[in-house]
Amino acid sequence: MTHREARERAAAMLADAGIVLTPAERDGIEVTDLGLGRLEETGLQILTYVNTERVCAKELVLFPRQICPEHRHPPVGDDPGKEETFRCRTGSVLLWVDGHGEVELRPGDQFTIPPDTLHWFRAGDEGAVVSEFSTRSRDETDVFSDPRIVR
Amino acid sequence: MTHREARERAAAMLADAGIVLTPAERDGIEVTDLGLGRLEETGLQILTYVNTERVCAKELVLFPRQICPEHRHPPVGDDPGKEETFRCRTGSVLLWVDGHGEVELRPGDQFTIPPDTLHWFRAGDEGAVVSEFSTRSRDETDVFSDPRIVR
Repeated sequence: MTHREARERAAAMLADAGIVLTPAERDGIEVTDLGLGRLEETGLQILTYVNTERVCAKELVLFPRQICPEHRHPPVGDDPGKEETFRCRTGSVLLWVDGHGEVELRPGDQFTIPPDTLHWFRAGDEGAVVSEFSTRSRDETDVFSDPRIVR
Repeated sequence: MTHREARERAAAMLADAGIVLTPAERDGIEVTDLGLGRLEETGLQILTYVNTERVCAKELVLFPRQICPEHRHPPVGDDPGKEETFRCRTGSVLLWVDGHGEVELRPGDQFTIPPDTLHWFRAGDEGAVVSEFSTRSRDETDVFSDPRIVR
């Protein structure tokens, strides 16, 4: 699957979830294989609505069984690290959070991940659309446990 | 319309927007007439997903032509005031923001309102479902221009 195909597939999953996007937003969906070159297994599709100094909101799209591997959002300057709430919209996602364990999120379920806390997530067999409500997103400072990963 | 009827109507509008809620969330939809006793004209239905010290996310439901009157979110302690991004999901909403003027939001459109800035909004003829992504919500400190309003 090319990144362009992944973007189109993600846009279709968002449309199926009843989420209306502008054409510019559809074209701007970020596709990342996290530098591992196996997008269908490991990676993420991201639509960012807003990312100010204080607030960020996104839709995360995961293909069936696709994984976003273990990482944390460390403190940066005065910021204690990104706090994230995941809310499942369609499909299902298995979320693991350090100190909490595994939680399965189905449509209407949500979980808040504290700052600087290791976590990973993997979509179920239908894939998933997950809303993320958070503090500012600074992807370049994310710390992944797998040293091969480049964000 | 009783508050219970308003809650059921808001839940139906959220369902029509493709938004899945838990039963507890449906029962917990906040209905406010802002103390004016004319809910169908002036007021708001609110589903709060999360409201931590740092991040808040809600769905706002407005009935046809319903108004949320002019107000601002002032600084509170170290907080410079609530910053809000409104994103229209269904229907339409006319948003007025001090220093910017009027902007009509239709599905897929959004606008970020800076802290401590006067604004009001009114739904169009079909009503509206609007996602709100913001910093912490402290409704009790909101400043409405109409002194009769009680939040």
